[in-house]
Amino acid sequence: MASRNEPEEKAPDARVVRTQNDVLRAATDVLIEEGWDAVTQPHVARAAGYSKATVYAHWPERIDLLRDALGRFSATPHSYPTGDLRSDVLRELGAYRYAIREHRLDRVMVTLADKAMTNPEVVEIRDTFVADGERIIRSILGPYLEGKELDGALAILSGALLHRVLFFGVIPDDEELEAITDLVLTGTGLQDRDGNTTAKASPR
Amino acid sequence: MASRNEPEEKAPDARVVRTQNDVLRAATDVLIEEGWDAVTQPHVARAAGYSKATVYAHWPERIDLLRDALGRFSATPHSYPTGDLRSDVLRELGAYRYAIREHRLDRVMVTLADKAMTNPEVVEIRDTFVADGERIIRSILGPYLEGKELDGALAILSGALLHRVLFFGVIPDDEELEAITDLVLTGTGLQDRDGNTTAKASPR
Repeated sequence: MASRNEPEEKAPDARVVRTQNDVLRAATDVLIEEGWDAVTQPHVARAAGYSKATVYAHWPERIDLLRDALGRFSATPHSYPTGDLRSDVLRELGAYRYAIREHRLDRVMVTLADKAMTNPEVVEIRDTFVADGERIIRSILGPYLEGKELDGALAILSGALLHRVLFFGVIPDDEELEAITDLVLTGTGLQDRDGNTTAKASPR
Repeated sequence: MASRNEPEEKAPDARVVRTQNDVLRAATDVLIEEGWDAVTQPHVARAAGYSKATVYAHWPERIDLLRDALGRFSATPHSYPTGDLRSDVLRELGAYRYAIREHRLDRVMVTLADKAMTNPEVVEIRDTFVADGERIIRSILGPYLEGKELDGALAILSGALLHRVLFFGVIPDDEELEAITDLVLTGTGLQDRDGNTTAKASPR
């Protein structure tokens, strides 16, 4: 119970934020461990240790609870580009791999892809989620590539890594991330076969 | 009813084959339209128009029904390599896209990836499924690449296409398939930046 000496307009805010964080953390855990269909207000309330009424009060619609839980992934650490093209790509791929290993981003993505196939409401959530996740790698390659070449390079970088995880159960090692990076940089002409950056790799 | 003049040992075989085909076709439809969990013997029996007893007699275990239903995808048309590297890769990517568009291979793959995350029995099914599906493209690139470079190139080709479908809801057009193909062939040094095959692209 907040002390009566605390400013009344501040204490409830902090409690609300804490409650929302607790509930969303629990919702994310339920999503990863038990899947999309398990993320219901009553089940998440139980997992978070709050009443159903509290969860329903914040999220009357289940889809909004899912959307906000997924939004927490936007806070997943990305890399900070330095301007060195090859090492920036590599480090962002490393951050992607970290999010897969530590935060089960692969499970979240496969669930989103699965549900988006039959539920139009999820398409919009998936699109926001993917656009958020792609922002850094797009900013790294955006100065050098454009249009279909840029889209293709991004699909290759994300797709190749996730493909190995989803369909081979393999989390690529550094050597494999380097092979993918070099293949994309060489294939787009940003790097020559000896691994040196080319004239194309000077920002337009 | 088979005529008594027919050889007795042949007629039942044909009926068994037809029944199995009918049931597996129904199981595949249920898998694609309603998802993995809906593929149960009673539900598939109803969908196929057979008795539960018939389906249970052929597939006492649900996982075997799923495995055999997925096995039907091995019969999905692939391309026939001609020896022209770039056009062979392109045509096999086209066959992959066709299977996604016409047979919802994307749904099947995402479901397999999803279930393999929590069910070890599905890992083995997924691995067989992926190895089957990858056979032709591996045979096309296998003469020129090896080890991690080959694995990486295959992950890129399959991964980039599927990534666009699963996470952007886009089925790549011919131009995009060509961009992916050229990027991989150039990136692995099998093609120069002008699209001409290099010395590396002569089988070892």
